Amino acid sequence: MDDDSRAKHWEHRTEIPLFVAALVYLAAYATHVLATDMPAVWHAVCLSVTFGLWLVFAADYVVRWRLSGQGLRFVPTHMLHTVVVLLPLLRPLRIVRLYEAVQRRSGQPRLSLHARVISYAGLSTVLLAFSGSLAVYQAERGAPGATMHTFGDAVWWAASTLTTVGYGDVTPVTPLGRVIATGMMIGGLALLGAVTGSFSSWLMRTFYREGDEKPPGS
Amino acid sequence: MDDDSRAKHWEHRTEIPLFVAALVYLAAYATHVLATDMPAVWHAVCLSVTFGLWLVFAADYVVRWRLSGQGLRFVPTHMLHTVVVLLPLLRPLRIVRLYEAVQRRSGQPRLSLHARVISYAGLSTVLLAFSGSLAVYQAERGAPGATMHTFGDAVWWAASTLTTVGYGDVTPVTPLGRVIATGMMIGGLALLGAVTGSFSSWLMRTFYREGDEKPPGS
Amino acid sequence: MDDDSRAKHWEHRTEIPLFVAALVYLAAYATHVLATDMPAVWHAVCLSVTFGLWLVFAADYVVRWRLSGQGLRFVPTHMLHTVVVLLPLLRPLRIVRLYEAVQRRSGQPRLSLHARVISYAGLSTVLLAFSGSLAVYQAERGAPGATMHTFGDAVWWAASTLTTVGYGDVTPVTPLGRVIATGMMIGGLALLGAVTGSFSSWLMRTFYREGDEKPPGS
Amino acid sequence: MDDDSRAKHWEHRTEIPLFVAALVYLAAYATHVLATDMPAVWHAVCLSVTFGLWLVFAADYVVRWRLSGQGLRFVPTHMLHTVVVLLPLLRPLRIVRLYEAVQRRSGQPRLSLHARVISYAGLSTVLLAFSGSLAVYQAERGAPGATMHTFGDAVWWAASTLTTVGYGDVTPVTPLGRVIATGMMIGGLALLGAVTGSFSSWLMRTFYREGDEKPPGS
Repeated sequence: MDDDSRAKHWEHRTEIPLFVAALVYLAAYATHVLATDMPAVWHAVCLSVTFGLWLVFAADYVVRWRLSGQGLRFVPTHMLHTVVVLLPLLRPLRIVRLYEAVQRRSGQPRLSLHARVISYAGLSTVLLAFSGSLAVYQAERGAPGATMHTFGDAVWWAASTLTTVGYGDVTPVTPLGRVIATGMMIGGLALLGAVTGSFSSWLMRTFYREGDEKPPGS
Repeated sequence: MDDDSRAKHWEHRTEIPLFVAALVYLAAYATHVLATDMPAVWHAVCLSVTFGLWLVFAADYVVRWRLSGQGLRFVPTHMLHTVVVLLPLLRPLRIVRLYEAVQRRSGQPRLSLHARVISYAGLSTVLLAFSGSLAVYQAERGAPGATMHTFGDAVWWAASTLTTVGYGDVTPVTPLGRVIATGMMIGGLALLGAVTGSFSSWLMRTFYREGDEKPPGS
Repeated sequence: MDDDSRAKHWEHRTEIPLFVAALVYLAAYATHVLATDMPAVWHAVCLSVTFGLWLVFAADYVVRWRLSGQGLRFVPTHMLHTVVVLLPLLRPLRIVRLYEAVQRRSGQPRLSLHARVISYAGLSTVLLAFSGSLAVYQAERGAPGATMHTFGDAVWWAASTLTTVGYGDVTPVTPLGRVIATGMMIGGLALLGAVTGSFSSWLMRTFYREGDEKPPGS
Repeated sequence: MDDDSRAKHWEHRTEIPLFVAALVYLAAYATHVLATDMPAVWHAVCLSVTFGLWLVFAADYVVRWRLSGQGLRFVPTHMLHTVVVLLPLLRPLRIVRLYEAVQRRSGQPRLSLHARVISYAGLSTVLLAFSGSLAVYQAERGAPGATMHTFGDAVWWAASTLTTVGYGDVTPVTPLGRVIATGMMIGGLALLGAVTGSFSSWLMRTFYREGDEKPPGS
C-alpha cells in the first residue's frame, strides 16, 4: 500500500469521527462559556474535553502530514486544514468534506455548484458568528466598561460586524476581544461577499425560473 | 386537463387578486402599527384582515403545492413563494409576476433585462425597508432604553442599515427587534448589491449613450 | 434643418455656457450656506443667482425636449439630464460631456476607458460629497440636538457616509437632513462601487506595468 | 549606453537599498511616535532620519525622471511611484518590485497570479493600517475630546475603518486626523475589495481542491 492510498484510507476512516469530535468540541466550549452557574467540576470536564479533542485534532494533522510525504509543502497546500488546527472552533467548516463523502457513497445527484456555494458559505458565516460571539463574550464578560453584557449582546454584535453595518452600540473593549473581532471582520467580509453575491444571483434566477424563462447568464 | 395546465390555470386566475390582497395586507398592518390613536375596534379590524389574508395566502400555497404534483420537492424549487408565505409582509415582492403577466397580455416589448433588474431590486429594497421599519418599530416602541422613538426614526434606521452605513444613533434594543434587524441586514445586503451594481453600470451606460458612443461591455 | 440636427446644434452651442452656469450655481449656493456673516443683500444676490440659473436649466431642458421630438419617451432616455434638472447641485456631473466635446475638437487621443471611468466616478463622488455636505449642513445648522456644528463636521460626515463606514459620531437629526442623507447613501454607494472597483483594478495594472509584464486580464 | 538601459541599470542597483531605506523610514517614524519617554535627543535623531531619507527618496525620483526622458508624461505613467514620494509611509508598498527582482535572479517558479494578488493586497492593507494608525495617533494624541487614548485604540480604529465596519467608539476629532482618515477610507476600500474578493475565491478553490475536484472557474 503506497503513501497516497494510505492517506486516502486514513481520511476515509477518520472523516465522520472527526466531524462528530468537532461538534462535541464546539458544544463543550459553548457549555463552558454560557453555563455560568454550572458546578465547577463540570467546567473542568468541559475544559478537559476541549483540550483533549484539540490533541486529537493535532494528532490527526500530524498523521496526515506524515502520510502525505510532502514535507513542508503540506502546510501551504492544506491551508484550511492548518487554520482549523490552530482555531479548532472553526473546525466544523470541514463539514463540506463530510457532505461530499456521504454523497459519494449514496450516489445521489449533487446539488448545483450554485446551491453548494450558497449553503456552504452561509453555514460558515453562521458558524463564524457563533464561534466568534462565544470567544469575544468570554473575553469581554465582566471587563470594566464592557458594553457586551449578555450572550445575546454578543450575537447581535457579531451580526452587525459580519454584515459590516457596525452600529457601535455594542463593541469589544478588551485587547483580546478586539483581536478576535478583527479576525472576524476579515474572515467575515470574505465569506459574506460570497454569500450575498451568490444569494443575489440566486434570487434573480429564482424569479426568472418562476416566470418560465431562461435565467440570466445561463 | 392535466396537473400542469391546471396549475397554470390557477396561477393565471389568482395572480391579480393575490397581489391586491398583499397590498391590503401591508396597508392593514401599517395602519395597525402607525395609527396609534385609532379606536380599538379598528385595530381589531386591521388585525382580523391581516390574519384572514394570511390564511388566504397559506391556502393558495397549499393548492399550488397539490396542483404541482411535486411532493416535498415543491419547497426548494419554490423558495421565494415559501418565504413570502412565512413572511407575508414581503409578499408584494411577487409584483414581478404581475408585471410579467400584464405585459404578456398586452404584447408590448419588455424592458431590457438591465432595466428590469434595477426596477425590481430597487422596489424590493424599498419594500424591505418599509416592512422592516414597521416590524422593528412595533417591537421597539415603548421598550425601556429604546432609541427609536418615532416611525421616522425607524425609517432612518432602516436606510442606514440596508446601505450598511450603520451610524448607530438609532438601534434596536429588544430581542425581537434585533432578530428582525439581522434578517434585514442579510436580505438587504443581497438586494442592495444587486441595486447598486446595476445602477452603477446603468450610470456608465447612460453617460456613454448620451455621448453617442457604444456603451462599454456591449 | 431637421429636428435631429437642430438638437445637436443646440447642444453644441449651449454645452460650455451651461457648464459655466452650473459652476456658478454651485458657487453661489456654497457662498449662501457658508458665508454666514455676509451682509443680507449678498445673501439675496446668491439666492437670486441660484434661482435664476435654475430657471435657465429648466428652460434648456424644455428646449431639448421639444427639439428631440420624442414626447414622453424623452424622460426615461435622458434620465441623468432629468435628475440634474431636479437636483441642480449635481449638474456639474455633466462635465463628462464638456470633456468629450473639448477632446472631439482638439482631436487628441482619448484617455483609456479605464482612466475615464475612474476620473469621472471619482469626480462625481467628490461633487456628491461637497453638494451633500452643503445641503445637509444647511438643514442641520442650529437644529436642536444637532451633532454637526461646523462645515468641517459635515464634510467628515459625508466621507464616512459615502464610504459606508458610518461612525455615527456626527449624524443628521432633522427630517430634511435625513432625507438628503438617504439620497447620498444610495447615490454614493453606486458611484463608490465604480470608483473603488476601477481603482483596485488600476492599482493591480500599475504594479504589473511597472514590473514590465503584461497586466492581468489584458 | 542609451537612456532606457541607464534607467534599468539605476533601478537594478537601487532597488534593494531603497527598500531597506523605506523600512528604516517606517521604523524611525514609528519610534518617534510611540516611544514617548525616549530622551529628546533620540527624537531628534528619528526626525533627522525620516527627513534625510525623504530627501533620498525625492532624489531617486528626480534621477529616474531625468533618466526616463519622458518629461511630464513620467508623472501619470509612474503614479504609484509619485504617490509614495509624497506619502513615504506607504513606500514599502513597493516590496512587490523587490520580490520580483529577487525571484528573477533566483529563477524559482513564481507564485500563481492568484496568490501574488492576495499576498500583495493583504500586505498593503496591513501596511496601510499600521502607517495610518501611526499618523492618526500622532494627530489625535492629547487633543481635547479625543477618544483615541492609546496606540491600541488607533489600531482598533484602523481595523474597523478599513473593513468599513465603522463602530464609531473610537474616532478622530482633529482636522488633520480626519483628513488622514478619509484617505485611509478611500485607499482601504479599494485594497480591501481586492483582498476579500481574492480571499473569497481562494477559499472556494481550496475547498474544491481538497475534495479532489476541479476548482470552479478553472
